[in-house]
Amino acid sequence: MEIHPDVESVRFLLGRWEGRGKGDYPTVEPFEYIETLWFDAGPGKPWVAYRQATRDAATNEPLHAESGYLRVLPGHRLEMIIAQPTGIAEVHTGTVDGTHIHLRAGHVETAPSAKDVTDVERHITVDGDTMTYRLSMAAVGEELQRHLTATLTHHGWIRATS
Amino acid sequence: MEIHPDVESVRFLLGRWEGRGKGDYPTVEPFEYIETLWFDAGPGKPWVAYRQATRDAATNEPLHAESGYLRVLPGHRLEMIIAQPTGIAEVHTGTVDGTHIHLRAGHVETAPSAKDVTDVERHITVDGDTMTYRLSMAAVGEELQRHLTATLTHHGWIRATS
Repeated sequence: MEIHPDVESVRFLLGRWEGRGKGDYPTVEPFEYIETLWFDAGPGKPWVAYRQATRDAATNEPLHAESGYLRVLPGHRLEMIIAQPTGIAEVHTGTVDGTHIHLRAGHVETAPSAKDVTDVERHITVDGDTMTYRLSMAAVGEELQRHLTATLTHHGWIRATS
Repeated sequence: MEIHPDVESVRFLLGRWEGRGKGDYPTVEPFEYIETLWFDAGPGKPWVAYRQATRDAATNEPLHAESGYLRVLPGHRLEMIIAQPTGIAEVHTGTVDGTHIHLRAGHVETAPSAKDVTDVERHITVDGDTMTYRLSMAAVGEELQRHLTATLTHHGWIRATS
C-alpha cells in the first residue's frame, strides 16, 4: 500500500477492524455492542480517513456511527476531527507513541438539538492484530469518565479513499 | 429503499452524485475540480450520512475530502456536522424548502494547525437528476464570500450505511 510518508507512524491503524464493546454512563443503562471500524490512508495525503458503525449486541439494531479524519503532524503529534450523527463534532489534539494513540478534545462543538457533550478523551492501542480503545466523555453535567471500551480484530485492508 | 420517515423530506439528496466544480478565493488561484459525493440514508435512523471527494480537473490529483451527517428535525429544520481532513469541523443549522437546502455554520471549530475558517454557508439545490451547490466561506481574515460552485448528476443509489 502506498501511503504518504507522514502516515507511516500510524500505519498500524490501517484497515478494517471488527469486534465488541461495552458502554456505560451514569445516565444510561449499560449496553454491549458489535463494531466495525475503518482507518483508510488518504490518497497520498498526510491524513487517514476514519469511519465507524455499531450495532446492539443483543438485538443487532444499528446504534451509533461516526466518521472523520486523523491528521498526522511532525513530532508524533496528531489532530483528529470526528463528526457524529448525534450532532457532535470532536476536534482532538494528541500524540502517537509506538502503537498507542492518545487524543483529547478539550472542547466539543455541538448542534443546538444535540446532547450537551463538553469533553472527550480517546485512547487507542494496537497489539499485533488486536485493537483496544477506551473513550471517556464529559456530558450532561457529568465529569469526564469512562463511557466505552472495546476490543477489535484486524480484518484486512481497504483501498485508499478517492 | 426503506428509510426513516423523518428522512423523507431530504430523500431527493440520496445516492451518488458526480460532476465538476470551480473554486476561487482572494487567497488562492482559481481551480476546477471533479467531484463524487454520496448521501446515504442512515440504517433506519433520522439522519443521512454524507461523504465527498474531489480531484484536480487538470491533473486528476486528489484534492479535498469531507464526511459527516445531516440530521433531519421537525419543521423542515436541519443540522449538519461535517469533518474535514484540513482540520475543520463545521456544525450547521439550516432548513429544507422543497428541494433546496440552506445551511449556515455561524461558527467553525478548527484544530490548532488548521487554516483559520470562521464561517461557512452551503446552498444545495436538486432539480431532477441535477444537483447544484454553492459554498461560501469566511477564512484567513476574508469576509464570507463564494468559494465553491459545482453541478453534479445523479449516478444511482447506494445502500444504507451499516
